[in-house]
Amino acid sequence: MKKSLGARAVPVAAPAWLVGTYDAEGKPNAAAVAWAGICCSKPPCLNFSLRKATYSYAAVLERKCFTLSVPSEEHAVATDFFGIYSGRDHDKFEIAGLTSVKSEHVEAPYVGEFPLVFECRLVHHHDLGLHTVFVGEILDAKCDEGLLDEKDKPVVAKLKPFVYGNGEYFALGARIGAGHCDGKKLMGSS
Amino acid sequence: MKKSLGARAVPVAAPAWLVGTYDAEGKPNAAAVAWAGICCSKPPCLNFSLRKATYSYAAVLERKCFTLSVPSEEHAVATDFFGIYSGRDHDKFEIAGLTSVKSEHVEAPYVGEFPLVFECRLVHHHDLGLHTVFVGEILDAKCDEGLLDEKDKPVVAKLKPFVYGNGEYFALGARIGAGHCDGKKLMGSS
Repeated sequence: MKKSLGARAVPVAAPAWLVGTYDAEGKPNAAAVAWAGICCSKPPCLNFSLRKATYSYAAVLERKCFTLSVPSEEHAVATDFFGIYSGRDHDKFEIAGLTSVKSEHVEAPYVGEFPLVFECRLVHHHDLGLHTVFVGEILDAKCDEGLLDEKDKPVVAKLKPFVYGNGEYFALGARIGAGHCDGKKLMGSS
Repeated sequence: MKKSLGARAVPVAAPAWLVGTYDAEGKPNAAAVAWAGICCSKPPCLNFSLRKATYSYAAVLERKCFTLSVPSEEHAVATDFFGIYSGRDHDKFEIAGLTSVKSEHVEAPYVGEFPLVFECRLVHHHDLGLHTVFVGEILDAKCDEGLLDEKDKPVVAKLKPFVYGNGEYFALGARIGAGHCDGKKLMGSS
């Protein structure tokens, strides 16, 4: 039996990401976001959401670019830290002991210790209310070499991304199926 | 050492969702998407991406609404099925043996067997290239009652959502931290 919960953004498990920017003075900053992901394959694009009140909001609009860095399980505490405090008041990279690396293609820093990063130029943003959706075109993706398969895609079990849902962080667990494959069984048996 | 992978939508683990629509004749259809998630809290909104070539694309634009249904681990095969075949050629609900339930608030069906569903009206869409991003305002969320905590939020370990990444499906695993909590340790020790 389903219960109606009303018009609510009921929390769903979502991967953790960090948005990287430089502020007006060039200080590197990053903020944790759970509402982010790939949204187009050609041109390759990523989207994420920020509140206007955040320090990163103005930075993204000013420089028209950003990075998105994907943390591994081992970075869960640091990721949470980047989601609690504001770059307005703190040098978060310094406190977290993480390295801000200048991107090759855009004026934004990424997290050197995180295994997978995307350098993006802002191509669209849309104010929805409390949050604004930002869309960036991926100019380059970079991944720690040892995590890649033979097609240069990250092996999920090595990348070890994690998700945020209802106030908690969860590692990924067992492999439960093969994409674009297992579903064919249903067609065969119909 | 990071390897540059170029301008590519490198796959990252992302939760599985099904977009539900009625076609022009009123036949229920659903399509699997991995590029979806909450994008605004007030008003509550969800976004997802579709290619123009999909059967769902026209249906969303025609009725200006859709549902998003969150599957549990046990629905991984069905979810994959809904991502392989087109509603143009098949009655996917019938073949998968799942129930299309008419929404209360919008002209779109959700998957009755899936534990968490959102009824949405289309508020924005933006063509990025091969994919279009659709944003819908959540008019109602519905969840299986037994999965809710005392604040009417789904308990992740009971909801059992799963993620898609680099061609495989993964269950969620161990809880590795508390959100808006663990990160405070870094500030205390700085």
